[in-house]
Amino acid sequence: PPRLRRNLVSPYDPRYKVWEIFLILLVVYSAWICPLEFAFLRYLPRAPFIVDDVVNGFFAVDIVLTFFVPYVDSKSYLLVDDHKKIAVRYLSTWFAFDVCSTFPFQSISLLFNKHDHGLGLKFLNVLRLWRLRRVSSMFARLEKDIRFNYAVIRCTKLISVTLFAIHCAGCINYLIADRYPDPRRTWIGAVMPDFREDGLWIRYVTSLYWSITTMTTTGYGDLHAENSREMLFGIAYMLFNLWLTAYLIGNMTNLVVHSTSRTRDFRDMVQAASEFAARNQLPQQIEEQMLNHICLRFRTEGLKQQETLDILPKAMRSSISLYLFFPVVQGSYLFKGVSSGFIQQLVTEMQTEYFAPKEDIMLQNDKPSDLYLLVSGAVDILAFLDETEQIYGKAAEGELLGEVGVMSNKPQPFTFRTTKLSQILRIGRSKLMDIMQENGEDGQIIRVNFQQKL
Amino acid sequence: PPRLRRNLVSPYDPRYKVWEIFLILLVVYSAWICPLEFAFLRYLPRAPFIVDDVVNGFFAVDIVLTFFVPYVDSKSYLLVDDHKKIAVRYLSTWFAFDVCSTFPFQSISLLFNKHDHGLGLKFLNVLRLWRLRRVSSMFARLEKDIRFNYAVIRCTKLISVTLFAIHCAGCINYLIADRYPDPRRTWIGAVMPDFREDGLWIRYVTSLYWSITTMTTTGYGDLHAENSREMLFGIAYMLFNLWLTAYLIGNMTNLVVHSTSRTRDFRDMVQAASEFAARNQLPQQIEEQMLNHICLRFRTEGLKQQETLDILPKAMRSSISLYLFFPVVQGSYLFKGVSSGFIQQLVTEMQTEYFAPKEDIMLQNDKPSDLYLLVSGAVDILAFLDETEQIYGKAAEGELLGEVGVMSNKPQPFTFRTTKLSQILRIGRSKLMDIMQENGEDGQIIRVNFQQKL
Amino acid sequence: PPRLRRNLVSPYDPRYKVWEIFLILLVVYSAWICPLEFAFLRYLPRAPFIVDDVVNGFFAVDIVLTFFVPYVDSKSYLLVDDHKKIAVRYLSTWFAFDVCSTFPFQSISLLFNKHDHGLGLKFLNVLRLWRLRRVSSMFARLEKDIRFNYAVIRCTKLISVTLFAIHCAGCINYLIADRYPDPRRTWIGAVMPDFREDGLWIRYVTSLYWSITTMTTTGYGDLHAENSREMLFGIAYMLFNLWLTAYLIGNMTNLVVHSTSRTRDFRDMVQAASEFAARNQLPQQIEEQMLNHICLRFRTEGLKQQETLDILPKAMRSSISLYLFFPVVQGSYLFKGVSSGFIQQLVTEMQTEYFAPKEDIMLQNDKPSDLYLLVSGAVDILAFLDETEQIYGKAAEGELLGEVGVMSNKPQPFTFRTTKLSQILRIGRSKLMDIMQENGEDGQIIRVNFQQKL
Amino acid sequence: PPRLRRNLVSPYDPRYKVWEIFLILLVVYSAWICPLEFAFLRYLPRAPFIVDDVVNGFFAVDIVLTFFVPYVDSKSYLLVDDHKKIAVRYLSTWFAFDVCSTFPFQSISLLFNKHDHGLGLKFLNVLRLWRLRRVSSMFARLEKDIRFNYAVIRCTKLISVTLFAIHCAGCINYLIADRYPDPRRTWIGAVMPDFREDGLWIRYVTSLYWSITTMTTTGYGDLHAENSREMLFGIAYMLFNLWLTAYLIGNMTNLVVHSTSRTRDFRDMVQAASEFAARNQLPQQIEEQMLNHICLRFRTEGLKQQETLDILPKAMRSSISLYLFFPVVQGSYLFKGVSSGFIQQLVTEMQTEYFAPKEDIMLQNDKPSDLYLLVSGAVDILAFLDETEQIYGKAAEGELLGEVGVMSNKPQPFTFRTTKLSQILRIGRSKLMDIMQENGEDGQIIRVNFQQKL
Repeated sequence: PPRLRRNLVSPYDPRYKVWEIFLILLVVYSAWICPLEFAFLRYLPRAPFIVDDVVNGFFAVDIVLTFFVPYVDSKSYLLVDDHKKIAVRYLSTWFAFDVCSTFPFQSISLLFNKHDHGLGLKFLNVLRLWRLRRVSSMFARLEKDIRFNYAVIRCTKLISVTLFAIHCAGCINYLIADRYPDPRRTWIGAVMPDFREDGLWIRYVTSLYWSITTMTTTGYGDLHAENSREMLFGIAYMLFNLWLTAYLIGNMTNLVVHSTSRTRDFRDMVQAASEFAARNQLPQQIEEQMLNHICLRFRTEGLKQQETLDILPKAMRSSISLYLFFPVVQGSYLFKGVSSGFIQQLVTEMQTEYFAPKEDIMLQNDKPSDLYLLVSGAVDILAFLDETEQIYGKAAEGELLGEVGVMSNKPQPFTFRTTKLSQILRIGRSKLMDIMQENGEDGQIIRVNFQQKL
Repeated sequence: PPRLRRNLVSPYDPRYKVWEIFLILLVVYSAWICPLEFAFLRYLPRAPFIVDDVVNGFFAVDIVLTFFVPYVDSKSYLLVDDHKKIAVRYLSTWFAFDVCSTFPFQSISLLFNKHDHGLGLKFLNVLRLWRLRRVSSMFARLEKDIRFNYAVIRCTKLISVTLFAIHCAGCINYLIADRYPDPRRTWIGAVMPDFREDGLWIRYVTSLYWSITTMTTTGYGDLHAENSREMLFGIAYMLFNLWLTAYLIGNMTNLVVHSTSRTRDFRDMVQAASEFAARNQLPQQIEEQMLNHICLRFRTEGLKQQETLDILPKAMRSSISLYLFFPVVQGSYLFKGVSSGFIQQLVTEMQTEYFAPKEDIMLQNDKPSDLYLLVSGAVDILAFLDETEQIYGKAAEGELLGEVGVMSNKPQPFTFRTTKLSQILRIGRSKLMDIMQENGEDGQIIRVNFQQKL
Repeated sequence: PPRLRRNLVSPYDPRYKVWEIFLILLVVYSAWICPLEFAFLRYLPRAPFIVDDVVNGFFAVDIVLTFFVPYVDSKSYLLVDDHKKIAVRYLSTWFAFDVCSTFPFQSISLLFNKHDHGLGLKFLNVLRLWRLRRVSSMFARLEKDIRFNYAVIRCTKLISVTLFAIHCAGCINYLIADRYPDPRRTWIGAVMPDFREDGLWIRYVTSLYWSITTMTTTGYGDLHAENSREMLFGIAYMLFNLWLTAYLIGNMTNLVVHSTSRTRDFRDMVQAASEFAARNQLPQQIEEQMLNHICLRFRTEGLKQQETLDILPKAMRSSISLYLFFPVVQGSYLFKGVSSGFIQQLVTEMQTEYFAPKEDIMLQNDKPSDLYLLVSGAVDILAFLDETEQIYGKAAEGELLGEVGVMSNKPQPFTFRTTKLSQILRIGRSKLMDIMQENGEDGQIIRVNFQQKL
Repeated sequence: PPRLRRNLVSPYDPRYKVWEIFLILLVVYSAWICPLEFAFLRYLPRAPFIVDDVVNGFFAVDIVLTFFVPYVDSKSYLLVDDHKKIAVRYLSTWFAFDVCSTFPFQSISLLFNKHDHGLGLKFLNVLRLWRLRRVSSMFARLEKDIRFNYAVIRCTKLISVTLFAIHCAGCINYLIADRYPDPRRTWIGAVMPDFREDGLWIRYVTSLYWSITTMTTTGYGDLHAENSREMLFGIAYMLFNLWLTAYLIGNMTNLVVHSTSRTRDFRDMVQAASEFAARNQLPQQIEEQMLNHICLRFRTEGLKQQETLDILPKAMRSSISLYLFFPVVQGSYLFKGVSSGFIQQLVTEMQTEYFAPKEDIMLQNDKPSDLYLLVSGAVDILAFLDETEQIYGKAAEGELLGEVGVMSNKPQPFTFRTTKLSQILRIGRSKLMDIMQENGEDGQIIRVNFQQKL
């Protein structure tokens, strides 16, 4: 974390993070109380307005605080900590909106006009919903953060939007009924004629109930529009719902497709292997080896790993190989006394593979195209003799496999078969020979090492 | 199947599998009876409680049994058969939940308090739904098992979830109406004023009917919430349904997309070939050959086969090739008397291809880049003479095609055209020459074989 | 079309196709009349039963006919025209079902029992719906036939299923009401108390209306279940609808995704090119060339063409190249007098490319890595002189571009820029040189041709 | 823009574009007024008919104008400006439809028959909806235009279709009720018995309300079909809605999947890298480098860039490379005095890469496989000495990295690590050596430059 100028608050400071989370909670409260006040104002007690002023106070503090928080420049990806630049940026973007959404119109109007139930100033209060952009940008941030599950974040976002839409629509629809001249000809008055006498709770629940009934297109019909104002609002709300529902389903489909893709890819591969085995009447043993290997591959690597490593620059891939395999290669008898530059070149050309138990790494009589190094696991050394397989020995971790064939360029004399889950390093014979030729001395050492072993 | 210590039950034992399936059936029964008892308890006869105790008994037996079943370690993929480890693992994970979900609270409470209709102990009974995790894990297992159709498993799972949700919601909604002080102001009482006198069957069907009407958002409105308790439950249920419906549709889309992908890929390829032929005004004959080949390709191989074989390790691909093609290659005249190591190397480099009837395998005058071996099917040998195609002979199964061009490095003297569906092995000329050079003696034998044939 | 034995009807005979289409129409009629008779039997006039018998007659003819139609074996893809095999195959598969679905139970029962309104024999009539498998297999066939639009076939299939479901559900629901003891307590009787006196038309429309209202989950509620029988049927129907709707949406999503993929891929590519140009501040002229080329590419080739050509076997690709390009290559001055075998080898290595107007094919001073041949279009030959581009000449169709650089292995002396939409053949210099070396004489002729031109 | 013949209007003329947009607005007006007149004619004042005639006038002008607008030929992509061809094309395609949809049937009929409320001529008026094909083709054009957001265009199109469907269905349903003999037995008359006395506004809103209630499948049931005519229309409308809804959801899913794919690919890659790091216990520093690099890659390049560049022809890629990198390569000390042809060849083989701050470009002791040129950013030169990294120097923009290793073919003596976001050009050692060998003199100059530097 870079050093900041005096009087500045780092955006990475844990205390600032806590402050941001606290503000998000206040925004959620605002989003809930604001439509409620708008629709049910005349039934609300005095208390919420005091709470409102306190909440506004916190947001006012945040406006001031923003002038002291550096921002990350979108081009150079560097933190800008110049007071003037921070101020210019904020003043030219959200400042005006933030001030409007924080100004306590409600309380000020109440000072002058104690019993105003008009809609005029109430509309100004709706400006407070501007604060929701904080929630929106928070979700955008969380979606890109792999510490959080994508599906969970996405669903939370959609549930929030749904709940907020239901809440708002319920409140607005109530407001329309409340303001209608003839209470009997309203959606709520037709069922509860004296609804204005009922408690806040019952009216709020009824509004929400109408709202969710319409949103989900259940439409029981026990509550329905009775006049053209309500019809018009209903038309608008149903059109909105059509799109929201389609959007919900679209997102769900997206998540389902993504979440099942791994299982499906796995199934497709296993199926292809099984079909291939069945069509060609492969022996049971080979089919099992194939299926085991595919299972292992999916468990150890996943699908995107190779693709991800491929986009990394060469030096980074070298760093990773060096870190992982340098010691184990250096410890091998064939490379004793060889310069570390040689081993570094060798290691960067090596690839790692996993083998399930009872899988063949190499077959007797195969062309010696690769040299293997057993990183972990255990291997049996076999050979066919008189038509039966005989075990000639075992290879332990850190041992080389197939070096006899590779160094003398003869068909492999043995079959190597794993007995446990094994990790193996592989390097192509031609690459090894190239590197040995380029590094004449080291190549000589290796040949000597090989002769001594024999 | 590995040998187990004494007193242990193998998880692969068919009898254990049967026991597991039996328990799954009991879980399904529990999932159905548990909400029913919860909501309709006072109308239920005594019998179910006795059945309940028997069911609980079976689950108690399973808890004991679990201490004697080895588990597969998630890291080493090995079966752990140490009594202590098994016990520690179970006690530290699901043991407490399993015991709670098996304890017969209901029966014990009835012993003390014969006519209790309170909700207190009934809630404890809901713990039995914990058993559903068995069903959940069974579905997770089946989804990865290619012996079962993925779409069927997935649909079964979703239908189960849907039915369970409908059942539960119906029961809970009935419970709310049943407990409401004024029976006339309930969703069921408004339509059937004396519903408490009606039979269990009619009340259960009505509850289910309301539940499915709401779930599918049909919402006739003949049954609807009459008081705020019911409204609140309705709101919660409809929100849940919104997500369940979206999830169902997402899964269905996923299955449809997957199930049609093969047909669509096939159509896209055929379409691309047709368009190419039309744009370039290719003769009818070539277009037909193209379309036939694409059809054959889709029938014999499917889409994922090559991809699947590519991820197998080299030794396994060698094993497969050896098994499939070693005899047929060894039987060919050109490779008579050649060492089996040579043939092994050759075979691992070979690729197999299928040709539809009347397709050209090779054209006269083509560069001799590949050697072909007819594994099955039949081939005509043709040549252009005086502007007309003349049949020079036929090749039967096991014969080589194009070896004259390849061995003498001259343009192919003949066109080879299939007369039946044929399978063919192919090896590139350069690879063949490399292997012959590396195995000098065998190469010499091949050249002699070739001369003798000529 | 292969010759058939006597007394056999070719399945490819146009008259047999017409017969099949005629039967499909009869199936559609059966699918409509069968549920209608089942539900509204007592109101139906006598006429349909006579029509029924005629329809049954046609299907009886088809059963007999099937014994004379050869079938395609699923393994060898050959037509089997052995009478015995045809009979065995039919008798062991669909024969029994076909007979049951054709037997005129209805008419026979009416002979014995003139006024039977019981359900007993009516159920046997439902067996006729077995005929629907013909429609099902027809759709499966059409889906794979690229002469028909996939989306249209798929939508037709789904609309048919939907209409059939609506029709059936309406009929069954009416049947339940019709059989209910108290007509007032049925879904239709509650609204139309004397519904049994109403005409068939009004009752059928009302049933369909209820059915579609429920299917689409509109659920106005003007018609709704009044007794538990209707509730149970409603539950079953709504569950089915839940899945049908999800299936419809899944299919629609599939079609939409597929139909828009081309436009979207095009947009993505154009967008990527534009962004690349903007980020690197490329001059207007280069950006336009890029966008033109991408547009052209999408118009001329589509997305799948290269992929499709790649899966064709080598000989087929050679045939296509020979057909398309042999004459134009042979007509070029450089290859005058060269053997046709040489040109064949050359042509099979060539690739075709399209260039939009004002695009550069080759830049002055570029490495001479490829030789181009202008198949169609027109090209300007340009060179930079004193910092300005000057036109040195024009190349017409059939002329070679860049042969000076390629033959003398010097940087290209000119820039070639298209003036019209042009098609060009390209061959790599190294491949050309390899072929010239392998065919010494022809190579010499080419060199002489080149010298003479100079 | 090409020169046109006299008396022709260019389709690219901005004034013609404005005219087209104006006509689109008139079409929107027509689409709204036409069903309204059809259903509510007897309540409409005289004014709309005069407006109608004016609108018809504009379309008549457009018919005439079309004869003077050249068109783009679909094969050659050239503008056809031959009067006769333009006329033939128009007369043989849309002319007849356009005339019919413009002819003022309504006004002419009113001249003869002042008080006609019959449906006869009204149907002719519906022909005006033919004009909607302009809107349809406009959307098809906009979808391919990357200046507009695809999702916005697609959503606008779908919203338009939805609104038009709602509007039409509302009008038709009203018309059915209005013409029904018994006003009390209509969907609107059952609720508003004297609906014919009500104002146009209230009836239009009620119609729309019914329409949207049915479309969204809310189906409150307060307004529902009362007679079989309305039922039949309801059945047709609900079937249509089923498909429209499925189509909306399909499109939404398509857009959601596409819009989230970038974020999801990014997450998948980061996740794969993290898992790889965790499984192999890579040190924190390497993991951070990996994640930074992936983030940078997504920010700088996007997903489709490389794919897009790959389909461009070679000459175009050369042009781009020359434009971007020629000056920076020419300015490098190693290539001082080298011919521009040599630099051109070098530049066309170069690739560009971005490195995040603190990333390694090359590791000490690595094989000298690539030469790098720092285009922008800054780099530290490090070496391990006594087990610690020491900074040996810094490289500024325009400097070469790793040329010592490449020119002398020795392991790289230094590690190069970025300190800022850096852009780097890379060329493989073997390609560089090839080009130097082919251009002997230039190769000599480079060697001299290198010696002098040392």
